[in-house]
Amino acid sequence: MKASIITIGNEILKGKTINTNFAYIGNALTNAGYDVWRGIIVRDIADEIGFALKTALDSSDLIVTSGGLGPTYDDMTLASVARALGMNITLNEDALEMIKAKYKDLNIPITDQRRKMAMLPEGSYPLPNPVGTAPGVFINYKNKMIVCLPGVPSEMKGILDLTIDKLKSPGKSYVEKTVRLQGIMESAIAPLIEEEMKLWGNRVYIKSHPGSIEVSNPYIDIEVSSHLDSREEAEKDVDSVLNEIMAKYKSYIGK
Amino acid sequence: MKASIITIGNEILKGKTINTNFAYIGNALTNAGYDVWRGIIVRDIADEIGFALKTALDSSDLIVTSGGLGPTYDDMTLASVARALGMNITLNEDALEMIKAKYKDLNIPITDQRRKMAMLPEGSYPLPNPVGTAPGVFINYKNKMIVCLPGVPSEMKGILDLTIDKLKSPGKSYVEKTVRLQGIMESAIAPLIEEEMKLWGNRVYIKSHPGSIEVSNPYIDIEVSSHLDSREEAEKDVDSVLNEIMAKYKSYIGK
Repeated sequence: MKASIITIGNEILKGKTINTNFAYIGNALTNAGYDVWRGIIVRDIADEIGFALKTALDSSDLIVTSGGLGPTYDDMTLASVARALGMNITLNEDALEMIKAKYKDLNIPITDQRRKMAMLPEGSYPLPNPVGTAPGVFINYKNKMIVCLPGVPSEMKGILDLTIDKLKSPGKSYVEKTVRLQGIMESAIAPLIEEEMKLWGNRVYIKSHPGSIEVSNPYIDIEVSSHLDSREEAEKDVDSVLNEIMAKYKSYIGK
Repeated sequence: MKASIITIGNEILKGKTINTNFAYIGNALTNAGYDVWRGIIVRDIADEIGFALKTALDSSDLIVTSGGLGPTYDDMTLASVARALGMNITLNEDALEMIKAKYKDLNIPITDQRRKMAMLPEGSYPLPNPVGTAPGVFINYKNKMIVCLPGVPSEMKGILDLTIDKLKSPGKSYVEKTVRLQGIMESAIAPLIEEEMKLWGNRVYIKSHPGSIEVSNPYIDIEVSSHLDSREEAEKDVDSVLNEIMAKYKSYIGK
């Protein structure tokens, strides 16, 4: 099954913030058996969030968003998602209880801005936030899943870690292994990779990551991965390809 | 003028690599006067690269891509971009000279894989790569600009730094300043931000970045930015808003 990741926030587009959330979510979804298919980064603008969601729904079974769940005027993810899907947004009592519990210990009243974090698309479920105040949100939409997470990394991770087991893609196993070849240029190993890819068709994927500059002291990480129903088969295929590469380039390993 | 950034590479989607290139490009384009509008991250698949390019062209005047310029079979950015734009791909003599010069010092022959890095969309220009082998590429398409950069960060930066002056958005100045308020919750300052935004309309943009967890020891960075024709006016507006915020929240500054 395919997944897309949407990041909402001008600070990401302007390069003020490095998008570590994207990598965390991408890694979690890959390990949960998804092909992470596309990423879309948009501004804090309702139409842009709607555009991103519709684009992601075109290709993917699971969409995970991060950003825009907080209390300020430009936290508009839930209202924008609801509008794009033609859903109403209503006060979710479970979400409100979660938020009240957070502020209660501090004797802080629930203002309109704080209550806003409990306004969820109708029929959706709040996901507990073990770290901050705004709950995550789970939406079922035409047999697709949409998960909305906050942008603050610790909160995003806290919610996703508690939720990921429920999102597992049924029956797909992902196996990935890497070997480093030292003192060889990417352009020199390109023909071998092409040959192996032709041989293995769509059972394995081989990708080279040049780790330094091509012409001076080069090294390459050759990553071999497989996404099959059976973890055993995926592992067997990956190991076979790695062994072939290592046999051919023995003298470049661990130099 | 608007810009979009496209990142090409499965390793980004899988969360194996944190997308630092995106932040570097976003920051450079913002400082060059662009509104960075959308980001799209796609797989090393020709159709996906074409999809990303067409989506970016819908909204933006400048598109910058990174990734997929190297010598391996899955480096397919230039061929995919050409196909999406209905251009032919041909051997660019200037690009070939640049590549030959890189390998010449090392007495390394030009193989098919190395020559591939000089196959450019017809009518485009190679951009010198001061660090590695694959040149960047500049394409003029229906009064829009497309710049293709490699994925290796040092090479991407090397080419972009040499090119950015030619990409400047005419007549727009970007000013951004930030003040940190300590010991206050984002939900407490939300009404003020909303009020200021209503007051200043589209001359300034105010965004709050909660720097820790809402309920325990919170702080917020209030970022005020402006994108106007005149740098002086942008600076004046930003300072006015900052001064109002600082006057109102004096006791939370530098606590």
